[in-house]
Amino acid sequence: MNSIYDIIVKKRHGGALTDREIRDAVAEYTNGNVPDYQMSALLMAICCNGMDGRETATLTDAIATSGEMLDLSSLGELSVDKHSTGGVGDKTTLVAIPIAAALGCKIAKMSGRGLGHTGGTVDKLESIDGFRTTLTKEEFISQVQKIGVAVIGQSENLAPADKKIYALRDVTATVDSIPLITSSVMGKKLASGAHSIVLDVKYGSGSFMKTVTDAERLARNMVEIGKRCGRRTAALITDMDTPLGECIGNILEVKEAIKTLHGSGPRDLYELSVELAAMMANLSLGIPHPTAMERAQEAVKDGSALATLRAWVEAQGGNGELIAHPEHFPEARYSREVSASADGYIGSMDAERIGLISVSLGAGREKKGDPIDYAAGIVLKKKTGDRVRRGEVVATLLTDRAETLEGAVAHFAYAYTVTDTQPERKPLIHEIIT
Amino acid sequence: MNSIYDIIVKKRHGGALTDREIRDAVAEYTNGNVPDYQMSALLMAICCNGMDGRETATLTDAIATSGEMLDLSSLGELSVDKHSTGGVGDKTTLVAIPIAAALGCKIAKMSGRGLGHTGGTVDKLESIDGFRTTLTKEEFISQVQKIGVAVIGQSENLAPADKKIYALRDVTATVDSIPLITSSVMGKKLASGAHSIVLDVKYGSGSFMKTVTDAERLARNMVEIGKRCGRRTAALITDMDTPLGECIGNILEVKEAIKTLHGSGPRDLYELSVELAAMMANLSLGIPHPTAMERAQEAVKDGSALATLRAWVEAQGGNGELIAHPEHFPEARYSREVSASADGYIGSMDAERIGLISVSLGAGREKKGDPIDYAAGIVLKKKTGDRVRRGEVVATLLTDRAETLEGAVAHFAYAYTVTDTQPERKPLIHEIIT
Repeated sequence: MNSIYDIIVKKRHGGALTDREIRDAVAEYTNGNVPDYQMSALLMAICCNGMDGRETATLTDAIATSGEMLDLSSLGELSVDKHSTGGVGDKTTLVAIPIAAALGCKIAKMSGRGLGHTGGTVDKLESIDGFRTTLTKEEFISQVQKIGVAVIGQSENLAPADKKIYALRDVTATVDSIPLITSSVMGKKLASGAHSIVLDVKYGSGSFMKTVTDAERLARNMVEIGKRCGRRTAALITDMDTPLGECIGNILEVKEAIKTLHGSGPRDLYELSVELAAMMANLSLGIPHPTAMERAQEAVKDGSALATLRAWVEAQGGNGELIAHPEHFPEARYSREVSASADGYIGSMDAERIGLISVSLGAGREKKGDPIDYAAGIVLKKKTGDRVRRGEVVATLLTDRAETLEGAVAHFAYAYTVTDTQPERKPLIHEIIT
Repeated sequence: MNSIYDIIVKKRHGGALTDREIRDAVAEYTNGNVPDYQMSALLMAICCNGMDGRETATLTDAIATSGEMLDLSSLGELSVDKHSTGGVGDKTTLVAIPIAAALGCKIAKMSGRGLGHTGGTVDKLESIDGFRTTLTKEEFISQVQKIGVAVIGQSENLAPADKKIYALRDVTATVDSIPLITSSVMGKKLASGAHSIVLDVKYGSGSFMKTVTDAERLARNMVEIGKRCGRRTAALITDMDTPLGECIGNILEVKEAIKTLHGSGPRDLYELSVELAAMMANLSLGIPHPTAMERAQEAVKDGSALATLRAWVEAQGGNGELIAHPEHFPEARYSREVSASADGYIGSMDAERIGLISVSLGAGREKKGDPIDYAAGIVLKKKTGDRVRRGEVVATLLTDRAETLEGAVAHFAYAYTVTDTQPERKPLIHEIIT
């Protein structure tokens, strides 16, 4: 056992920690032998002085192996996972995964719940009547073998070191560190067992990384660490200045995902979902990227992806009829339209603010355990770059809590700007890192 | 109140904290509202990203004013304090203070106990039969007014923020930071109330700063901060590669101090003590430095400094006869001589190791509260640069604990080297910073 004091000293002076030192620090902190005040000092030293690739890979592995490791060996090399660093209106999992499964990928995925301005896949799935996000390990694997896809909530015993370290980082201002973010995300992905991992690293107002440069650094680091840890890994860097698609809120997003699998959803959501599915197929099935793109588009056109979504929902106890008839989803009781106050173009949207407004309407959580109203949310009628006239509707706000509407409308006025000239369109997909 | 989280974020990214932020962090940590794990993250961020002069001065003042502030206003501008960053065999306080008091300085000083390889003035004074290091505030001030000097143990309520922060730094590897060391030392000095402060910043194997460059940076910072906080401040940078004088151990050091005030002590101890006393007189009495040097030497020659020591000891209940007859001090029961194993010169001495050997003999403490044997210690017969012949005595080890002798002798063999050529003599006083 290395003394935690000596480990802190070394990193405080910018030294590279040995594998043994990293594993000891993680293990002894997780089992309670190292107190919070020493771990927070070490985490701050890592924030300030960094970690090289070898150190980060070891930290990632130490976090991954701190609890249960999901065994997906029965799926062979076909197992593939997808992770988004989180955004507003990001329902790509609901679109990309059925496409990828339709192409032959095996997706045994654990997802999280929404917190703060970002939503979570588990909440979205649970907004489908009857959908169960808790399965036994046997049910989980056998469903993937049968229909290619299953998504459950994150296991309690997955990467317990990450849970403990993340809670400490959250209160000690040691969140924004590339090696710490990488090891947290990739540690959980490693423990989740998939052979290939496709990452969607977002940048912009609605995401954690505010600049494309930071997102690139993080994406490159995550891909490097994934590969060092023996997984096929690739990443997309995508724009999250504006919410993805037009809908924010659980049922609204499920409906938008269905529409997109019908081929009639918003262009940005379709484009990104097809790209993600193609990358999943490329990594796990070895299909060349251009072919994978064609097949992904074909799976939408021929309805096989939509059929996979329905099979998936039904396999997990959800009401499949809702996939065929999304108009039967419950609707929010109250709604209010927000209109533009001037002629011009939508110059920018503040995705984080829009996410927080949707939380205030009941669509998300301010803190863990808060209740969610599945039908609440926001439908954007205009997005960045669109022409608007004074009085024209920019968005509709939906809620079951009438008392929240007024404040939400007032806040929404600060969530976008109207400009005289049309802003330059940024590409949704900035870069692909393989 | 600023949120501690935001304060950590700011320093983590290298920002300069506002005065309000620094005072809030110190106050809220001291009163228990900020937990250890957040404070240790902030301390590590300060270690990594530093603090400018204004920030350090504010931190110093916040620490100083966290508890009782000693009021020395009745001593006017004559009050002067002296601080050593700690070394082995450093008994300059016992020599320099009587000299400075004989010159007219007013020294109302709080001192510490020994810990680890360094000794403490309070222990040395208590080795004089009857000496009391606890006085009421009235006794303390009135003694200084009468005879010019009083030394007591550090008040419990002096700079409580420093006690709490230091204990945390000690276990989180955040000790070696210039702004944190400066604010800890100078915070206590400010609270101790003296108008002028003379610092003895040591470098080398026996001190905390291992290189002269580090000692210079620390000394310059402490002088700057002292001045910013309204105190006349100056510093010496002195060598602590070799123990100071020939004696290590409480009674042994008191006897050596007496000898030095008789004018027959070791040259290095005499030189440094006279310089410190002259600087104290220069700062507090405004005597030009060359004149102050002459007067300090004169106070030794004419016996006034020795008489001041006796008056001081008697004022605090100590047996003054011991100052006149140091041969009456108790002696250690067991002793052992260490002899050189080869002809040559003493090439180097490891002051820290020698300090630790004296602790093992009973002269110091491994941890707070350990008992001390006042007569135990080491007398060096040879020091760095001295010629030695094989079999000649290098040092005498003294103890009341017979069982410690063998190990101490064995360790001492590693505490010095014998070389063929005489090593270059380094000046004891490297630099004076005013």
